[in-house]
Amino acid sequence: MRKRVVIIGGGAAGMSAAAKARRTDPELEIVVYERSGYVSYGACGFPYAIKGEIARVEDVVVRTPEQFAKQGIKALVRHEVLAIDPAARTVRVRDLASGAELTDQWDELVLTTGGAASRPPLAGADLPGVFVLRSVEDALAIRGWVEERQPARGVIIGAGYIGLELAEALAAHGVALTIIERLPQVLPNLDPELAGHVQAELERQQVDVRLGLAVEGLAGDERVREVLAGGERFPADIVIMAVGVKPSAELARAAGIALGPTGAVAVDDHQRTNLPNVWAAGDVAEAHHRVTGRPAWVPLGTTANKQGKTAGENLGGGDASFGGIVGTVVVKVFDLEAASSGLSEARARAEGYAVETVAATASSRAHYMPGHQQIHVKLVYEQGSRRLLGGQLVGREGVAKRVDVIAAALHGGWSVDELAELDLAYAPPFSPVWDPILVAANLARR
Amino acid sequence: MRKRVVIIGGGAAGMSAAAKARRTDPELEIVVYERSGYVSYGACGFPYAIKGEIARVEDVVVRTPEQFAKQGIKALVRHEVLAIDPAARTVRVRDLASGAELTDQWDELVLTTGGAASRPPLAGADLPGVFVLRSVEDALAIRGWVEERQPARGVIIGAGYIGLELAEALAAHGVALTIIERLPQVLPNLDPELAGHVQAELERQQVDVRLGLAVEGLAGDERVREVLAGGERFPADIVIMAVGVKPSAELARAAGIALGPTGAVAVDDHQRTNLPNVWAAGDVAEAHHRVTGRPAWVPLGTTANKQGKTAGENLGGGDASFGGIVGTVVVKVFDLEAASSGLSEARARAEGYAVETVAATASSRAHYMPGHQQIHVKLVYEQGSRRLLGGQLVGREGVAKRVDVIAAALHGGWSVDELAELDLAYAPPFSPVWDPILVAANLARR
Repeated sequence: MRKRVVIIGGGAAGMSAAAKARRTDPELEIVVYERSGYVSYGACGFPYAIKGEIARVEDVVVRTPEQFAKQGIKALVRHEVLAIDPAARTVRVRDLASGAELTDQWDELVLTTGGAASRPPLAGADLPGVFVLRSVEDALAIRGWVEERQPARGVIIGAGYIGLELAEALAAHGVALTIIERLPQVLPNLDPELAGHVQAELERQQVDVRLGLAVEGLAGDERVREVLAGGERFPADIVIMAVGVKPSAELARAAGIALGPTGAVAVDDHQRTNLPNVWAAGDVAEAHHRVTGRPAWVPLGTTANKQGKTAGENLGGGDASFGGIVGTVVVKVFDLEAASSGLSEARARAEGYAVETVAATASSRAHYMPGHQQIHVKLVYEQGSRRLLGGQLVGREGVAKRVDVIAAALHGGWSVDELAELDLAYAPPFSPVWDPILVAANLARR
Repeated sequence: MRKRVVIIGGGAAGMSAAAKARRTDPELEIVVYERSGYVSYGACGFPYAIKGEIARVEDVVVRTPEQFAKQGIKALVRHEVLAIDPAARTVRVRDLASGAELTDQWDELVLTTGGAASRPPLAGADLPGVFVLRSVEDALAIRGWVEERQPARGVIIGAGYIGLELAEALAAHGVALTIIERLPQVLPNLDPELAGHVQAELERQQVDVRLGLAVEGLAGDERVREVLAGGERFPADIVIMAVGVKPSAELARAAGIALGPTGAVAVDDHQRTNLPNVWAAGDVAEAHHRVTGRPAWVPLGTTANKQGKTAGENLGGGDASFGGIVGTVVVKVFDLEAASSGLSEARARAEGYAVETVAATASSRAHYMPGHQQIHVKLVYEQGSRRLLGGQLVGREGVAKRVDVIAAALHGGWSVDELAELDLAYAPPFSPVWDPILVAANLARR
C-alpha cells in the first residue's frame, strides 16, 4: 500500500515539503490542507503587491493547486485541519466551503501551519479599515481598500519589518502616514544608532514616526476613523496592525507535539518533532541558531523553504539535515536598505555575552565615483574569543547582499579578525578598495 | 638614531605601507621614491576618469605628497630608483626633473614597484595615438587624446578587464570600437560559457569583438591610422594596448631579491623577502592563494592595500600577517557585471584538480518584482572532497557583491554542500527566496 503524507498548511514550507517528497519518493500519496484560498505564495511580496509595483496580488503565487496536481500533489484550499490524533494517525478536517467535516489518515504528517499576525485586543480593532497582513486575502483586502477608498490618512501600528514595508507601500498611494511604535526605536532587531538612520529616512519621506507610544484603542463608525494613543487622537482612513507574528502552534500543542522555549514547535536537524512520523517546518517551527547554539524562532521565507525541503526529503526516505540559521534579515524602507545578521548588541548582551562593538561609515563605491552612498556598519563580537556575533548595515545602496558576508562569517564561527582577511570584490562602481565591512573589521583589529 | 625606511613606489601598496609604518612607530624616518608624478592613486578608477564619469583624472588620487608630508612621510615624485645595494643598505636614485643622482641609506626597504603594462614589440606601437593604461600620466594622455582628437574609430588590443573597461569608457565618447583578442574568448579568467554573456553585451553595445586574432602591427603617419591583424586592416584613430600586466621586478632581481614561480617577488605572510629588512607588497609581489595553497600573482588594489599595510606594520615593529587571497575579481562591462572568485573550471583542471561543475540561471530579485534580471552562476568544486574551488557570476545587477559569498566560502575551505547551507539575505527587491548562489549549490547537492 502507498504511504500517505498529510501536510497541514500550503505555504512555502508545506509546498516545499510536498514537492521534495514527491521528487524523493514518486510512490507517495501527498495531500495538503490549506485553510486560506491559496497555496505556495511568497508572503514577503505582499507589500509590493499592495504598493502596486506588482500588477496583481495573485502574482506572488508561485504555483497553483492545478499545477501541483500535475505533480501528483493534491492541494486542497479552504480546508482547515481542526485536530490531529497522533495515536490513530488521523486528522479531522473541515471543508470551509461546504462546512462538511472529514477524517483523513496519514503515515507521515507535516506540520506547516505557519505563523499568525498578532491582534492586540484593542477596542475597535474589528472596525472595517483595520487590517493585518499575513495571507493573500489580507493583501487583497488592503489593496482593495486603498484603491476603492483612497484613504488620505493612515496609521501603522508597529515599526517592524512589515510595518515599514507597508509604510512605503501606502505612501506610494498618497496616504499620509503615522507609525506608532510602543518601543523607543524602529526595527527592534537593529541597535538604536542604526535604527536611527531608518527613522530619519521615514521622516524624510514625510512619515510621522511616534516612538514609545502605546495604542489605547481605535474608534470609528461604519469604518475606522481614528487611533487613540498616549492621549492623542490620530485620524485614520486605514489602520494596519503590524505588531508582530506568533507561531500557529495551537494544533500541535493540542496534539501533544512538543513546543520549544520560543513557543514554536521543537524540531531536530531533520525537522522531526517529538512524535514519530510527525515533522514540522517553516514559521510554526524553531530553528537551530548557529550563533547562540540554541533554538530560535526567526520566521522567514528562506528558512521555511529550506526546512520544508529537508522534511520532504526525509519523510520520502532521504537523509537531509538543515544546518540552522544565523538570523539574516534585510528590509527595504523607501530608498534605504537595512540588513542584519546574527545578534544585535542589545540581543547579545541579553543573551549573556560580554561584547565589544565597532562601527564605521564608509562609501558604497570608490570615493571618486558619482552616486556613491554612505554605508553604516556595526559589528558585534565577543570579548576574549573575538568571535563575531552579529553585524548590521544601513545605506542607500549595496547593503542588501553585502550582509551575506556577515552571514557567511557567522556561519563559519569566525573571529572579527578572520572577517578582516576576506578577499572581497573590488571595482570602483561597486565598492571602495576597502569594503565597508573590512573597514569596520579592521577598526576592531586596531 | 632614528630608523630610516625607504619605500620604492608610491602606489597603493607603498603609501599604505608608509601610512601604517608611521602609525605603528611615530619615530621612523619614512621616504617614498615614486617614478611618476603622482602617489597614492587608485589605478582602477582610470577607466571612469577617461569615460568622463569622474570630472578630473587627478580625482582618483587619494592623498597628495603635501598631505603625506603633514604625517611626516616624505613622498618624492619623479624620482626613479636605479639600483638597490642590499649589503650597503643603500638605493641609487635619479631625480627625473633635474637629472641629478643621489644615494640614500635605509634600515628598512619596501619594494612596491607595482606592475607594468605589457607592450608587445609590434611595428608602429610607438605611434602617437597608441596607449597603454597604467599610470595617471597614461590616463591623462588617453583622455586628452579623446577630448582633443575626438577619434571616430578605435581598436582595443586585449579583452581582459582593462580592455573591456576602456571599451565602455571610449564608447561613451562615441568611439566606434573593435576589440581584438588573441584568445578565443573575452575575459580569460571566466570559463567560456560565462564569458559568452559578456561578449554578447559588448556586441549589444555595438562593439565589434574579434576573437582568436593576433595583431601583426600598427600603421600610420604622424599618428596611428590602422591596426593589422589576421590579414585585415582595422582603421583606428586611437589604439589601446591592454594585453596584460607583468610585475616590475627587475630592480628586485638585480639586487638578488628572490622571485617566485610567477615571476613576482616571493614573500612570506609578513611580506618579508629573502633579504633581511627588505619587504615587498602590492603588484610586484606574489600572494598566498588559499585555494591552491601556492603562491599566485593576482595584481589588484585590494591586495596591494592589505599587503602594504602588513609590511608597514611589521617594519614598524608590529606582528601582522596577510592571510592570502582567493582571487576575487569583478568588472563592469557596460550594463553587465562579471565576477569570479577562486579557480575557473579551466584553471582548476590546469592545476590538476578533478573537478565537477554546476551551473544555474536565477533571478536577481523575486520573480514577481519588476526589473529583475537573470544571474548566471557557475560553481567549480573538487570531486570526492566536494570542496568549492571557485565560482563565477554574470548578470545585469546583484552580481558584484554577491561574489563575496563565494569568496567567503573559498576562504573557509568549505564544500559546495556547506555553501548551500548559508543563511543569505532575502527580501523581494534584492533576491529571490533561493539566492542564485544557493540555487546553484543546491543543484550540486542534487
